[in-house]
Amino acid sequence: MSGLTIHKGQNCQFTQTLAPMKRNNRKEAKQTVFFTNPVHIVTANAVVGNKEAQGPLKGYFRRIKEDIKLGEKNFERAEILMFDEAVRTAFNEAKPIVGDVQLLISGDLLNQMTTSSYVARNLQLPHLGVYSACSTYTEALSLGSVFLDAGHFDTVACATASHFATAERQFRYPLEYGCQRPPYAQWTVTAAGCCVLSSKGTGPLIKSATLGKVVDFGQNDLSNMGAAMAPAAMDTMCALFEETGLQPDDFDMILTGDLGKLGSDILRDLMREQGYTLGQNYHDCGCLIYSVDQNCYQGGSGAGCSASVINEFVIPRLCSGEYRRVAYLATGALMSTQSCYQGETIPCVSHGIIMEGE
Amino acid sequence: MSGLTIHKGQNCQFTQTLAPMKRNNRKEAKQTVFFTNPVHIVTANAVVGNKEAQGPLKGYFRRIKEDIKLGEKNFERAEILMFDEAVRTAFNEAKPIVGDVQLLISGDLLNQMTTSSYVARNLQLPHLGVYSACSTYTEALSLGSVFLDAGHFDTVACATASHFATAERQFRYPLEYGCQRPPYAQWTVTAAGCCVLSSKGTGPLIKSATLGKVVDFGQNDLSNMGAAMAPAAMDTMCALFEETGLQPDDFDMILTGDLGKLGSDILRDLMREQGYTLGQNYHDCGCLIYSVDQNCYQGGSGAGCSASVINEFVIPRLCSGEYRRVAYLATGALMSTQSCYQGETIPCVSHGIIMEGE
Repeated sequence: MSGLTIHKGQNCQFTQTLAPMKRNNRKEAKQTVFFTNPVHIVTANAVVGNKEAQGPLKGYFRRIKEDIKLGEKNFERAEILMFDEAVRTAFNEAKPIVGDVQLLISGDLLNQMTTSSYVARNLQLPHLGVYSACSTYTEALSLGSVFLDAGHFDTVACATASHFATAERQFRYPLEYGCQRPPYAQWTVTAAGCCVLSSKGTGPLIKSATLGKVVDFGQNDLSNMGAAMAPAAMDTMCALFEETGLQPDDFDMILTGDLGKLGSDILRDLMREQGYTLGQNYHDCGCLIYSVDQNCYQGGSGAGCSASVINEFVIPRLCSGEYRRVAYLATGALMSTQSCYQGETIPCVSHGIIMEGE
Repeated sequence: MSGLTIHKGQNCQFTQTLAPMKRNNRKEAKQTVFFTNPVHIVTANAVVGNKEAQGPLKGYFRRIKEDIKLGEKNFERAEILMFDEAVRTAFNEAKPIVGDVQLLISGDLLNQMTTSSYVARNLQLPHLGVYSACSTYTEALSLGSVFLDAGHFDTVACATASHFATAERQFRYPLEYGCQRPPYAQWTVTAAGCCVLSSKGTGPLIKSATLGKVVDFGQNDLSNMGAAMAPAAMDTMCALFEETGLQPDDFDMILTGDLGKLGSDILRDLMREQGYTLGQNYHDCGCLIYSVDQNCYQGGSGAGCSASVINEFVIPRLCSGEYRRVAYLATGALMSTQSCYQGETIPCVSHGIIMEGE
């Protein structure tokens, strides 16, 4: 971590200071878990809103909601329905190949992860709620892979969702306020993604999971998530390269979750300081999903952002053999509105996985 | 599930109905994961508030905060400090026995689980955020055991916390309102608990984890958590007995998380309908932690409730050999205030583990 100091934020005015705990250096602080048994991505899909369907990836999204309220009374219910459709579609597509899903691991951005729980109550199967904001999807994929690799289940589903209107209301301002957005803001993606992993069947393999540390560089602007999350992405990406022994060039694609344009530029700089040059194979899901003329400023964000891009754009390319190896590091900002109002900075995390074609 | 129908709540007025998914019956819907390699509870501790320290378990709690604001500006920061103390104490106690903790799995009740993340940012080790409300502790213990059993890590910490004042403000009313509480209400426990699990060392063993399904019987009163959670506890407890082949009498203690008096009475009735009679060995952490004269009505609740009771009261008895086998089923209500205001009912979940003396 030469040249960079991870601190806990300048505005955090605890009467009693929480000192960082002294730990061994990275060599002993292992973050990567390797899967020796097959963990196939059997099926993956996403349900997206109309704005996402008009972006650069419009040719890839198959399930599109023109009305992002889905005919419901409120956006929260629309998010539940969208999540439910993604989950059921994945379950139904997987069933002829690997049978019934045995465990659902999911989460979302809303307080107490209600979207996820309200979908799970109709599924009658074990459910684990996980939360790491927009990194929830890679956390779920990591845990699902651990369960399958260990032989506890044969088939596990991982899912996440976000919705522009519910996220704006909860984290910033209700849409009706008509607030102006700063140029460094991102646009929460309206999308739900679900994939089914199995130790049986066929499909791309999850080879390893690098579990992220919570990192806080002192950013405290609720609109500038990219700058807050870039250091977390850097931290996990370094661990991923170091612990797998792979270099940036060994991947057909290196994808971060939703740093956006500004955040991914910062990440390139941070990685350069660490001795890694991210080349043309580095992309960010937040940058891929919207075009400049869609007025989304720095790009997309939200737990559904990388889930939809990975599920509908990247995994099919791994299936077809176009890509052989992909690193996918979703990134999450772990603040709440209350913590920010109380003067706290924004801690972030990034969990990364490596996927390979069969 | 004879005699009981799991439905999705009478007040849930979706324009489009989410039908429960048809699944195999319980015989094939496995919920229990068994650990064949040793998963020791090396150390466990809790930090509790003054009210908890005056209850029936006052002789057991070792770390007590007389001022539940801990000298901070607000209760949220106090919760962070309390959580931090529990985590560091467990880490320090475990270090001479099994070395450094390699992974932290934690969660709490606050929106976006800020307590947990704000503690994790100072620890510089991989962190997984998990959420299942007051069942978070057993979810964390289950996942920690899976990681250790599979050999991915040697030492994993699991932690959770809750705070009366932060929970009241977030889920019900700020304390300053002086709201009257209904007689069926529970009192959110001010406590943080952390334990260190390891495949090395000594200590009681986690033998299995039964992962809960999300269950909703249609209860929609934010103050009556016990009635909402009892069906989830019943569902998981039945799965635990069926899949482990054990009967209620095979346990020295069967503990639910925080159903409170009303909720645990309902659970006894529900279990009787399922053919299981819960005897004198059945207890509820919410009932154990407060005495009647403390005006906590139905008893304690909150993610810190069962964590503190298990860590300071039950685990020491497993260590000493007084108990040989304990079933611990924490219970969580997965609503948010917004979901309840929007007319939704309260989905609940319960994850259960079996602990045995060495």
